[in-house]
Amino acid sequence: MARIAVVAGDGIGTEVVAQARKVLDAVLPGVEATEYDLGAARYNRTGEVLPDSVLAELAGHDAILLGAVGDPSVPPGVLERGLLLRLRFAFDQYVNLRPSRLWPGTASPLAGVKAGEIDLVVVREGTEGLYTGAGGSLHRDTPAEVATEESLNTRHGVERVIRDAFARAERRERRKVTLVHKTNVLTHSGSLWARAFQAVAAEHPDVTTEYQHVDAAAMFLVTQPQRYDVVVTDNLFGDILTDIAAAVSGGIGLAASGCINPERAYPSMFEPVHGSAPDIAGKGVADPAAAVLSAGLLLDHLGHPEAAHRVSEAVAAELAARVPGAPLRTEEVGDRLAAHAAG
Amino acid sequence: MARIAVVAGDGIGTEVVAQARKVLDAVLPGVEATEYDLGAARYNRTGEVLPDSVLAELAGHDAILLGAVGDPSVPPGVLERGLLLRLRFAFDQYVNLRPSRLWPGTASPLAGVKAGEIDLVVVREGTEGLYTGAGGSLHRDTPAEVATEESLNTRHGVERVIRDAFARAERRERRKVTLVHKTNVLTHSGSLWARAFQAVAAEHPDVTTEYQHVDAAAMFLVTQPQRYDVVVTDNLFGDILTDIAAAVSGGIGLAASGCINPERAYPSMFEPVHGSAPDIAGKGVADPAAAVLSAGLLLDHLGHPEAAHRVSEAVAAELAARVPGAPLRTEEVGDRLAAHAAG
Ligand SMILES: CC(C)[C@H](C(=O)O)[C@@H](O)C(=O)O
Ligand SMILES: CC(C)[C@H](C(=O)O)[C@@H](O)C(=O)O
Repeated sequence: MARIAVVAGDGIGTEVVAQARKVLDAVLPGVEATEYDLGAARYNRTGEVLPDSVLAELAGHDAILLGAVGDPSVPPGVLERGLLLRLRFAFDQYVNLRPSRLWPGTASPLAGVKAGEIDLVVVREGTEGLYTGAGGSLHRDTPAEVATEESLNTRHGVERVIRDAFARAERRERRKVTLVHKTNVLTHSGSLWARAFQAVAAEHPDVTTEYQHVDAAAMFLVTQPQRYDVVVTDNLFGDILTDIAAAVSGGIGLAASGCINPERAYPSMFEPVHGSAPDIAGKGVADPAAAVLSAGLLLDHLGHPEAAHRVSEAVAAELAARVPGAPLRTEEVGDRLAAHAAG
Repeated sequence: MARIAVVAGDGIGTEVVAQARKVLDAVLPGVEATEYDLGAARYNRTGEVLPDSVLAELAGHDAILLGAVGDPSVPPGVLERGLLLRLRFAFDQYVNLRPSRLWPGTASPLAGVKAGEIDLVVVREGTEGLYTGAGGSLHRDTPAEVATEESLNTRHGVERVIRDAFARAERRERRKVTLVHKTNVLTHSGSLWARAFQAVAAEHPDVTTEYQHVDAAAMFLVTQPQRYDVVVTDNLFGDILTDIAAAVSGGIGLAASGCINPERAYPSMFEPVHGSAPDIAGKGVADPAAAVLSAGLLLDHLGHPEAAHRVSEAVAAELAARVPGAPLRTEEVGDRLAAHAAG
């Protein structure tokens, strides 16, 4: 039986996670869920972000479902680095998976792009690059101050995430992988990424490949998002490109994500991309769709593709039936999704 | 009298630069222009990208007007690093200026965004960050390979470009500056940028300021580009954000840019953001608008704001009069723009 750690978090996190759990229970009865109190509320109460003992407990689960953490009362960076990034690194979640679909019933901010036309997934590296914290500064607060930031890239780390991207492309209809980097300027890491990409591509003659500089990819995500299938890229480029991809499809409110250790040596974490939205928290009006889609990614990762499929079908039906602009109730949406997914 | 070095370059570069020169001659009679043969053609003929002797000659000019360089026959990176980046660094062009306007008569790919609503300028740092080439690799082509890429940031370099952004905001109607960085992850350089920004902001109480993480800014450029006035950011973030800004306004075909040394200690360089477009080169159908707008930025930089204004007015009139989809002739557009700007 799957053992899930649930970190509901702050603001609307608790509201949307409750719906995701309903849906999980509906499609996979008997999931064992344990709640962990982490996030802004705990930090403000105790000063703790992620005690080692909690990290050790989390490690004993099959997966983590997270709602959203954060509150204006917490200094920027504390929860991001102390909780989210710490989990990604501690649990070697090297695949940061971010699918973007323009679901029937939703509108793109792009003129002339129709529902169903965008269906891409970004496979973002999650444990290297500019996210390691390497760097420093000298002569702080003087005119002579210098600050460095170092991007660290290993063949090991780059190749494994590229392999994952090709494996995912093999399971999709278009079988296309786009590598995004900035090889004309970031020559050291760019060369490593390009060579690793070529090597893995050679093992997958049935997959179409292309390369784009990050600036061009950012532009094409706006002008021709339809052209992408699987995009593989480094940690920082992935951070930026996935927000653009979310913006041109249903918006960040519908974006799901997974921080995945494909070997399941450690628990993977699944969370909606949206934040804790303190402005609408407690009102029961947050859209649980992204949290529910994240639970779908969790199911897929744990080896329940059929249950995962029922979750996407339920979300697709829900979105298609929505009247644009009509108010929604978090609980009611959760009930409908659970009922639909249970079939 | 202004002494301009003209690097027409490759492909449509020569065609659009010819129109930009017509317009320059029309608004500022007596400009002394010297042509320099640099780009893919010269590289393929001689193996030279930018001989030191040519660099020294360029240094004797007030400004450089560049068309576009590049051709599929040249290995990627050669002209970018050997010519474009070399000029930026050699001539200390620390302000990479990239205005984006949704001109009347042009359509945004964004549904519901109307002409005139987007009017922003990105002030991108041009001489530091991840563009210095710092970094290296070890154990190349083995499973143990590592590659690093280093972002170098100095208080000197960061503060001067932020000062330039505030000075530009002072001259604009909305007087707003948005700092874009990723301070929650890139803590070393992020802290330097944030502190320098605060210090300069304190000297400009009449300018409204805000901060955004780069991922959020990339998203908001798609969902709410109207919110931006002046955006100041580092070299790599600026590379990405300016392509998004171009995409949501008239497209990269209308984007002008300047690589500027505001003190005029060295020549600044002005160029359309588009490339050499080998597919349409020689046909006389390239739109010279971006090259002409770049000449307008050149005029402004050299202290001819009134002439610069006439150039924008001419482009505005030209774009407003266009029939969407109608074919255009480069020469004819150039003639009309020159006549209108001469006024
Ligand atoms: C919160 C932050 C550290 C994080 C990131 O930069 O990865 C977020 O933007 C994301 O995309 O998950
Ligand atoms: C050609 C390349 C080096 C350059 C850059 O990255 O700055 C280009 O993308 C630009 O934006 O001017």
